[in-house]
Amino acid sequence: MTDTRTAAAAPLHLSPTDRTLARPVAPDGPRRGLGVGELVLDGGGFWGRLQHTNAQATLAHCVEWMERLGWIANFDRVAAGTTDGDRPGWQFSDSEVYKLLEALAWEHGRTGDASVDATFEALVDRVAAAQDDDGYLNTCFGHAGQPDRYSDLSSGHELYCTGHLLQAAVARLRTVGADRLVEVARRAADHVCREFGELGRDGICGHPEIELGLAELGRALDEPRYTEQARLFVERRGRGTLAPIALLSPAYFQDDVPVRDADVWRGHAVRALYLAAGAVDVAVDTADAELLAAVERQWTRSVERRTYLTGGMGSRHQDEGFGDDWELPADRAYCETCAGVASVMVSWRLLLATDDVRYADLIERTLYNVVATSPRSDGRAFFYANPLQQREPGADVRPDAVNPRAEGGVRAPWFDVSCCPTNVARTLASWQAYAATVEGDVVSLVLHASADLRVGLDDGGELALRVRTGYPADGRVRVEVLDAPDRPVTLRLRVPHWAQGATLAGPGEPVPAPAAPGWAEVRATFGAGDVVTLDLPTAPRFTWPHPRVDAVRGTVAVERGPLVLCVESVDLPDGVAIEDVRLDASVPPRAEGDGAVVTVAVVAPTGAEPGRPPFSAHPASSAPDAAAASTVATTEVALVPYHRWAERGPSTMRVFVPTL
Amino acid sequence: MTDTRTAAAAPLHLSPTDRTLARPVAPDGPRRGLGVGELVLDGGGFWGRLQHTNAQATLAHCVEWMERLGWIANFDRVAAGTTDGDRPGWQFSDSEVYKLLEALAWEHGRTGDASVDATFEALVDRVAAAQDDDGYLNTCFGHAGQPDRYSDLSSGHELYCTGHLLQAAVARLRTVGADRLVEVARRAADHVCREFGELGRDGICGHPEIELGLAELGRALDEPRYTEQARLFVERRGRGTLAPIALLSPAYFQDDVPVRDADVWRGHAVRALYLAAGAVDVAVDTADAELLAAVERQWTRSVERRTYLTGGMGSRHQDEGFGDDWELPADRAYCETCAGVASVMVSWRLLLATDDVRYADLIERTLYNVVATSPRSDGRAFFYANPLQQREPGADVRPDAVNPRAEGGVRAPWFDVSCCPTNVARTLASWQAYAATVEGDVVSLVLHASADLRVGLDDGGELALRVRTGYPADGRVRVEVLDAPDRPVTLRLRVPHWAQGATLAGPGEPVPAPAAPGWAEVRATFGAGDVVTLDLPTAPRFTWPHPRVDAVRGTVAVERGPLVLCVESVDLPDGVAIEDVRLDASVPPRAEGDGAVVTVAVVAPTGAEPGRPPFSAHPASSAPDAAAASTVATTEVALVPYHRWAERGPSTMRVFVPTL
Repeated sequence: MTDTRTAAAAPLHLSPTDRTLARPVAPDGPRRGLGVGELVLDGGGFWGRLQHTNAQATLAHCVEWMERLGWIANFDRVAAGTTDGDRPGWQFSDSEVYKLLEALAWEHGRTGDASVDATFEALVDRVAAAQDDDGYLNTCFGHAGQPDRYSDLSSGHELYCTGHLLQAAVARLRTVGADRLVEVARRAADHVCREFGELGRDGICGHPEIELGLAELGRALDEPRYTEQARLFVERRGRGTLAPIALLSPAYFQDDVPVRDADVWRGHAVRALYLAAGAVDVAVDTADAELLAAVERQWTRSVERRTYLTGGMGSRHQDEGFGDDWELPADRAYCETCAGVASVMVSWRLLLATDDVRYADLIERTLYNVVATSPRSDGRAFFYANPLQQREPGADVRPDAVNPRAEGGVRAPWFDVSCCPTNVARTLASWQAYAATVEGDVVSLVLHASADLRVGLDDGGELALRVRTGYPADGRVRVEVLDAPDRPVTLRLRVPHWAQGATLAGPGEPVPAPAAPGWAEVRATFGAGDVVTLDLPTAPRFTWPHPRVDAVRGTVAVERGPLVLCVESVDLPDGVAIEDVRLDASVPPRAEGDGAVVTVAVVAPTGAEPGRPPFSAHPASSAPDAAAASTVATTEVALVPYHRWAERGPSTMRVFVPTL
Repeated sequence: MTDTRTAAAAPLHLSPTDRTLARPVAPDGPRRGLGVGELVLDGGGFWGRLQHTNAQATLAHCVEWMERLGWIANFDRVAAGTTDGDRPGWQFSDSEVYKLLEALAWEHGRTGDASVDATFEALVDRVAAAQDDDGYLNTCFGHAGQPDRYSDLSSGHELYCTGHLLQAAVARLRTVGADRLVEVARRAADHVCREFGELGRDGICGHPEIELGLAELGRALDEPRYTEQARLFVERRGRGTLAPIALLSPAYFQDDVPVRDADVWRGHAVRALYLAAGAVDVAVDTADAELLAAVERQWTRSVERRTYLTGGMGSRHQDEGFGDDWELPADRAYCETCAGVASVMVSWRLLLATDDVRYADLIERTLYNVVATSPRSDGRAFFYANPLQQREPGADVRPDAVNPRAEGGVRAPWFDVSCCPTNVARTLASWQAYAATVEGDVVSLVLHASADLRVGLDDGGELALRVRTGYPADGRVRVEVLDAPDRPVTLRLRVPHWAQGATLAGPGEPVPAPAAPGWAEVRATFGAGDVVTLDLPTAPRFTWPHPRVDAVRGTVAVERGPLVLCVESVDLPDGVAIEDVRLDASVPPRAEGDGAVVTVAVVAPTGAEPGRPPFSAHPASSAPDAAAASTVATTEVALVPYHRWAERGPSTMRVFVPTL
């Protein structure tokens, strides 16, 4: 263990041969992702800036809040045997500490920053001290004054917390190798296997996550018992064994239909997606094609009918859950940040398992428009829910207040249920894991960002690349080869589905050739200085809702490259209410900054009858010609990227703008 | 007490001089409603049938379920001192027993049915036995093994339950006079005044209702202490004294803004509306014009911006609450049945206080389209929520199962939280209270239904009328005078706001004259045999959403008279999905049965991209011309009254149909 920590203390950029350590969430399929040391983001780019802020502000912010609220001290209380009495935090607060540990592990792996490692180790001291002799580790159950272990599988979140502990250990395994936290995780996993194995309790956790943690740890440690336990949990689900939670149906925690039989995601979105991610891991590691096909089927229907333009998932506040097909209200969109993180985890696994570019497209959509939307630009406040319309300006949030989880149009520093900040933190700290895949001698750039890469090829050698791009505002991606083996290798660049008219120019083909959406490929014996240039058209474009999406009928959205744009009240002329803006779709949007400018009419609302519900006999109120007749002004309005809305004070906002 | 019960056992039609007993929810203003004995509904009419089913089926149904679940036996356990151990039902289950008592009291008052009275008295035996010596009466708090009295004002519902007890006693007072239940209520009210009076706890209940109960009982018993206590509770609210409930804001229970300062209803709809009703009672009884104006202001904005076409209130499942202005999703409309009942209670009080016909119009809209929608035609199953769109056919409900409260498109026999069945029962049993108002010698027919009336005039004498009508399907309302004083009196008939082109013919004016929406009035010295005929145009009509109601932009609804109609999948041609129906608004709807027939196009859905969220670059997907181009069939479709949807097996449904 000492060796490992010594190694970790040195500035660390993993060598290509470390790539078994490099896969944060990669299943044992033919493809792998990047290790956090194989890519260095340019600090001035879109993701480089976010990752920098995460490192400089968010990690410390999470430590501070959890110290302040006593969520970390809960571990000390267990260690000291002083658990009698009120315990701060929800029953799942341990998981926030573990997600923070995971984020710290990735961050340290990425930069080798010794202070990050010191913070990590100090937390591990306190966590490890709370572990019971038999490996059980939870600060809410099983000690003096607490409910019995596993006495409330439906709501207790014990296995959920353990799953996050295991994921944190995997981050450590894949950056510095086995260490103290890995040993803690191993003992916790062994405890779970004893307690819930074939011969143990026939139980599952109300919140999936343990499946994921066990599968990842099993893979990282080459321990088939853990994979088998993950498989058991996946198979047990959907058989109605969880005690009901008042007013919620078994679909809430996916205990209504077995995973391999389900056609669509339903119920609580984060639960559904963590479960799906774990199921893909199990399917890949056990070569269970039927199970993999089931998750692909669920992904397809859920994406095509239950997913927002932003990639956001979850249409209902009531249960933080998926709605029915086509139920996609803009104003009450839940689109929990954590569901965005979880969706990326699912799609990433499916991409590695299948190479299907549609999974990569959804990852990009979700990263730009959900995950990147959550943190405020200073990294110290977050959106929990990510609606696509804000009707009332959000109320100011006190910087020292714990907020209810989902309301308001203002980012909050911390939440009563505060799952999102640490989920954002661990995702941003491991961002490069999702940037490319490697299969044999094929390197595929999944996400376009200014970065230097040094990627180990599966069949030996390495490919070093320098990517420079102004993406997402600018669509030119220039890839310069810094170093390459002296034999043909394949470089693939993803052409997103919206990039009609993209072109690719390679070293042997200086004239750009059309590049259809999908993978644009150059196979060559590259030499240092060779350049591959992808040009993606990022002019702003109109995007129309499917006619079955009732909530936004008669509206249009504007996208630019991977970015969803929005109109925000602070950009409207004085006195104009956002409700009265009608977009003139006969005038194409034009690019401006990283957003766009559109032409709108301001209409006078009509059709109201005093003292009646807002429905009337006057067809004028919704007929296009009548709207035109009631136009009181025509003007241009700037649209901004959705991920940056609400950065300029309380405002109203909409992604989908009614058309003239 | 014996006298009272003997009197009650005889068939009872209150004489006109009993009208002080006759006002179920009438404040001490210039106008009064009818006593349940002043009007006898024709059994074959719309409301006559509902009232009959309520009497024959629903009342017994409620008794059976509450016996089976132990909610009534909770009172026995208190009386027997055996409260230690698990208690069945939520903390507010006592209120269901009280609302049932209220319904039984009205029903007995209406018909004099001795068996109804026997059921009532048997329940009172058990309730009275559970009352503590100091008047406290609650089966969930304050006894062995239970939390302390008033130890959880935010969620405990103790005062809420007491409020319903008082309302039940008022129903008794206003049908048979003071009796045993009234004595129980008086002791309970005295207890509340001691505990929460000026010198007592400065507390309020998380769920308003005690205000209403105290105000009504104070009025019925001429006891100003109760009115004063109601006033105190109203004034204390909105000052943030209630302990927060996790994840809910103070607006949830209207503890965010004082009643007289608020501009709009917000938070939990039933809470907001019970509070508003109590506030009107207090305002009228204490001549507080500012408070009355505040509720009128709240009513106006809430109706104009937060109320559905059906009159339904509550846009959110999460907190069963109002949404923001213009937030009126059809599919996730909550429109709780109890909120409909409560809305009628508020509007009724405002109508009596102001004579403003808009309150009467909303009462009618809500009664036909929310309250009448809840009970299944056999009176043994109910809707809890009343959405205006059903995307997935409801799952069959087992007749012996307790259901979660709000989901599904199928009426359920009982709910985990089962406030709606008894609320429907008490409303239907006292329906005639809302049928007319009396002020001096002015009798105003508020609701049109076949019935015989014998109404005592405030300044002496009585007016006996026979109303015959096929309303709501048929708009002719024929009022024959059976008996009248030998002096001029005024008969007013309400012309609903939608009835453009109505006419009125009176005894002196055999040629129908135009009758504008509002009150159509005939003042005459009526003689027996005189006939007044009101003709209301009930041809089906299109109704368009206000342009700010985003959720149903580009759609139209069809109404007929006071009825909202809907299209139900069982009425569509085989193979046609309700999502693909487009209404051709260039063809006027025509009447058929009690519904209508419209012309629709069936379109082929376009714009989907496999593996992407349902938004695309193809403007075709929502442009009218493209929809026309994709029409695969044109057909006529029957629309049925919304209140009768889901009576023919599981179906999908929509009130707002996208236009071609």
